[in-house]
Amino acid sequence: MAPPLAASAALLLCLGSAAAVWPQPQHLSQGSASGGCCLSASRFRFAYAEGSAVAPGCDVLDEAFRRYWELLFPAAGRRDRGNDRSEDSPCDVLNVKVTKPGCSGFPSLDSSEIYQLTLSEKEMLLTADTVWGALRGLETFSQLAWEDDVGTHYVNKTDVVDFPRFPHRGLLLDTSRHYLPLKAIVKMLDAMAYNKFNVFHWHIVDDQSFPFESTVFPELSQKGAYNPFTHVYTPMDVKRVLDHARLRGIRVIPEFDTPGHTQSWGPGVPGLLTPCYAGSKPSGSYGPVNPILNTTYTFMSALFAEISAVFPDFYIHLGGDEVDFSCWKSNPDIQTFMHQMGFGQDYTKLESFYIQRLLDIVSAYGKGYVVWQEVFDNAVKVKPDTIIHVWKQNSGRYPNETAWVTKAGYRAVLSAPWYLNWISYGQDWLEIYEVEPLAFKGSAEQKALVIGGEACMWGEYVDATNLSPRLWPRASAVAERLWSNKTVRNRLDAYARLADFRCTLLRRGIRAEPLFTGYCDHEFDGV
Amino acid sequence: MAPPLAASAALLLCLGSAAAVWPQPQHLSQGSASGGCCLSASRFRFAYAEGSAVAPGCDVLDEAFRRYWELLFPAAGRRDRGNDRSEDSPCDVLNVKVTKPGCSGFPSLDSSEIYQLTLSEKEMLLTADTVWGALRGLETFSQLAWEDDVGTHYVNKTDVVDFPRFPHRGLLLDTSRHYLPLKAIVKMLDAMAYNKFNVFHWHIVDDQSFPFESTVFPELSQKGAYNPFTHVYTPMDVKRVLDHARLRGIRVIPEFDTPGHTQSWGPGVPGLLTPCYAGSKPSGSYGPVNPILNTTYTFMSALFAEISAVFPDFYIHLGGDEVDFSCWKSNPDIQTFMHQMGFGQDYTKLESFYIQRLLDIVSAYGKGYVVWQEVFDNAVKVKPDTIIHVWKQNSGRYPNETAWVTKAGYRAVLSAPWYLNWISYGQDWLEIYEVEPLAFKGSAEQKALVIGGEACMWGEYVDATNLSPRLWPRASAVAERLWSNKTVRNRLDAYARLADFRCTLLRRGIRAEPLFTGYCDHEFDGV
Repeated sequence: MAPPLAASAALLLCLGSAAAVWPQPQHLSQGSASGGCCLSASRFRFAYAEGSAVAPGCDVLDEAFRRYWELLFPAAGRRDRGNDRSEDSPCDVLNVKVTKPGCSGFPSLDSSEIYQLTLSEKEMLLTADTVWGALRGLETFSQLAWEDDVGTHYVNKTDVVDFPRFPHRGLLLDTSRHYLPLKAIVKMLDAMAYNKFNVFHWHIVDDQSFPFESTVFPELSQKGAYNPFTHVYTPMDVKRVLDHARLRGIRVIPEFDTPGHTQSWGPGVPGLLTPCYAGSKPSGSYGPVNPILNTTYTFMSALFAEISAVFPDFYIHLGGDEVDFSCWKSNPDIQTFMHQMGFGQDYTKLESFYIQRLLDIVSAYGKGYVVWQEVFDNAVKVKPDTIIHVWKQNSGRYPNETAWVTKAGYRAVLSAPWYLNWISYGQDWLEIYEVEPLAFKGSAEQKALVIGGEACMWGEYVDATNLSPRLWPRASAVAERLWSNKTVRNRLDAYARLADFRCTLLRRGIRAEPLFTGYCDHEFDGV
Repeated sequence: MAPPLAASAALLLCLGSAAAVWPQPQHLSQGSASGGCCLSASRFRFAYAEGSAVAPGCDVLDEAFRRYWELLFPAAGRRDRGNDRSEDSPCDVLNVKVTKPGCSGFPSLDSSEIYQLTLSEKEMLLTADTVWGALRGLETFSQLAWEDDVGTHYVNKTDVVDFPRFPHRGLLLDTSRHYLPLKAIVKMLDAMAYNKFNVFHWHIVDDQSFPFESTVFPELSQKGAYNPFTHVYTPMDVKRVLDHARLRGIRVIPEFDTPGHTQSWGPGVPGLLTPCYAGSKPSGSYGPVNPILNTTYTFMSALFAEISAVFPDFYIHLGGDEVDFSCWKSNPDIQTFMHQMGFGQDYTKLESFYIQRLLDIVSAYGKGYVVWQEVFDNAVKVKPDTIIHVWKQNSGRYPNETAWVTKAGYRAVLSAPWYLNWISYGQDWLEIYEVEPLAFKGSAEQKALVIGGEACMWGEYVDATNLSPRLWPRASAVAERLWSNKTVRNRLDAYARLADFRCTLLRRGIRAEPLFTGYCDHEFDGV
């Protein structure tokens, strides 16, 4: 009945086996079920441990306790929720102890995510430096708990010490090529948390549409969105995304890509884009942002003042990729400016001129920035703490780029091998999984400058109809590569755990597609 | 704001333009909105025309009238439903006239699907030979009606004479590699009707699992299904599929593929599969159905007696593809049999021997059959009315196969270029769309033997999580190729209509993925 390896593995692992955790923790040791706990919906609860630096009222953990309780006991009603205190045994409580105070803020690149789980019939304890680490531990705990055929929940005797290999573990969504309803973004944030991703890179605008509703420049979305009423993100929408992400320990890095990829900005801001010329006359079409006008920089400082205020993360992604020079070249005013500046015919100098001024603007707002690799490739002068986003696939030569970037002393984020919008037939998650981010020639210091990576889901062919199955579990392969130890690479083991985890995602309402033949106890029963 | 051609087209066409019908009717002529009708939810209704050979009580049309009214006025409540007779104008009623009596039966390969639509402020009339043709006309009518920005519904003055180019327009789903919940199959039947597909080829069992619940041999699903309780199709489930399909003019052709692809049959029927040998001993693994035992044929006649009774269509798909001879070769009893029969080492002779006897069994039940091309390639003697299913891609040489099959006087169904489970990045619908089924060297008589084709969605990597977006609108490209005139091939026109139709599918709750950048007024807002 079962096909070769694949499905039989899936078959085996979807029946609720113990200790299939995704991504694989750094250290995990397990005993048999005997030494462990049986969890009862009527008695089990999460609690703040004595001596914890954070206490009830910390929304991040209060909310997480509620979420994870419901994930553990999906069938149970609220009445059951651990209210029976009759015989409080060690198996009835997961005590959560956070050593560093602080709950109100947002996670950052420097946030500690380390946590420790000690699970036995004598004690169930989760300790972490920060609430963000505690969130990771709760996710692991929820994956360690398993349900047998008659619906009893167990956790085996288990000890976990876990922390991420890389601090920047991101997912890029593109809401310009297609608008993604808020519901889809929020659901994606849930799935990110299950995968221990911690950065949502929001590629919010591009050539095709401008759905970000700016309060300072409302014309941008009024004239640049696919539909100014139904296909926009209002300030409230953005706030909802930021809150939902924060409660899951996820940072939101918005990208406002310039000077290219800005066609949708044009209608809302007359004069912002470069008029292209056909011979001696304007052709009526427009190119990248016009870098030679002061009005451009006045606009950019006002817009980025708003962006810096709206998005709390220290970093903003400024893009800077794929600038098409042909329109600049066609424009006589630009040519004159090039001559005055002594740029000759080197339009990368003009691009650098623009980006340099933009970076100064953003720095003035006390923000750091991430830029696509061209900004580095074109030798733009950037602050030492700039993060360079390596994206060009050029047939596997991206390791060289990573080497050059880090040799220059900049931090790098890797996306080149992880463009999930590219699809092909079969188990392409393996290729994604087998990437080794540090496989480039360079010193230990250089390798230390690779702060992580991002899976990118560009939107040319993706909207809410196919986002989830295209993203999951393929992005999960990236999640484990960025979280787990470098040595975690075994294909068979990964297949088995990922097939199991995919069933977990289904049970949690994430439309994750199958790796191969087989089944889950709880199939997706939507349409 | 808008990208090149593509999105701007989509953009334009998703705002509710008139007369974008998919698949393109054979003859359609339209006037401006002025000569047409404005449809009112409170007054509009469907009615049986005077002199129609079918009358109220015909479930096929009664149900269709209800469905299409709701598709026309999704926002309107039941109270509104055309109950206001105050001023019955010609625009308030689409009169439906069916000339041939008969409603109770099932559609067949010979059913006429021709229909005629006359829509103007003076009269709205749909005429058809059969109820099945009337269904196609109602679908076209529903696509001709469009809604303006303030929610008023119009149909322009329109005349349509339409009929399919090919009578067999099918879609194959594989419920063995992954189990598809009934809900997903039913939804797919709805989408098929919107595309004027008329054959659901149900590849119901295969190596991986046996979800068909047989009343004669319950062990087949009890031991062969992924889960005998949750991952099976009960007799009631099958009946629901048959009814749902019939009401939409869709035939259901079940496939019980033998002698290969039968691993999941083994556990339920000891002795059915060939024991493979390693040297002189049985290896413990099993191969194709054992063709040398009488018990095999006793079993097959009992099973196919049930199948013939359960599935009303004249045709059953008997498979016959990809028989692996290695196990047969390893088995000494098979070798002896080969020798006795004088088959030498030609195992296609043994395959033919099996299939010949199976065909006789099925013929005895008064059924016709469809088989995969190998049965023809291996020169099995089959009845002249056998349908050969051409599926092997072998780098575009399938036209030769079609030529050979038809030269031999058999009817052919084409699937080779339409394996939709194969995916690639970008607009692969174009390749699917540009196939010309009759582009092979052969006489007019031969071409007449090509009765149609089927889009195939094999299930190795597909389940309910990704079925819909992978199927739609890619399968729609096949639907138009099989329905519309041979001359309907313009890419730009097709893009515009398909982008529009895809928005229609979304509005109707079908999770159809985008062709390219752009948007729909009503996006899919699920997750």
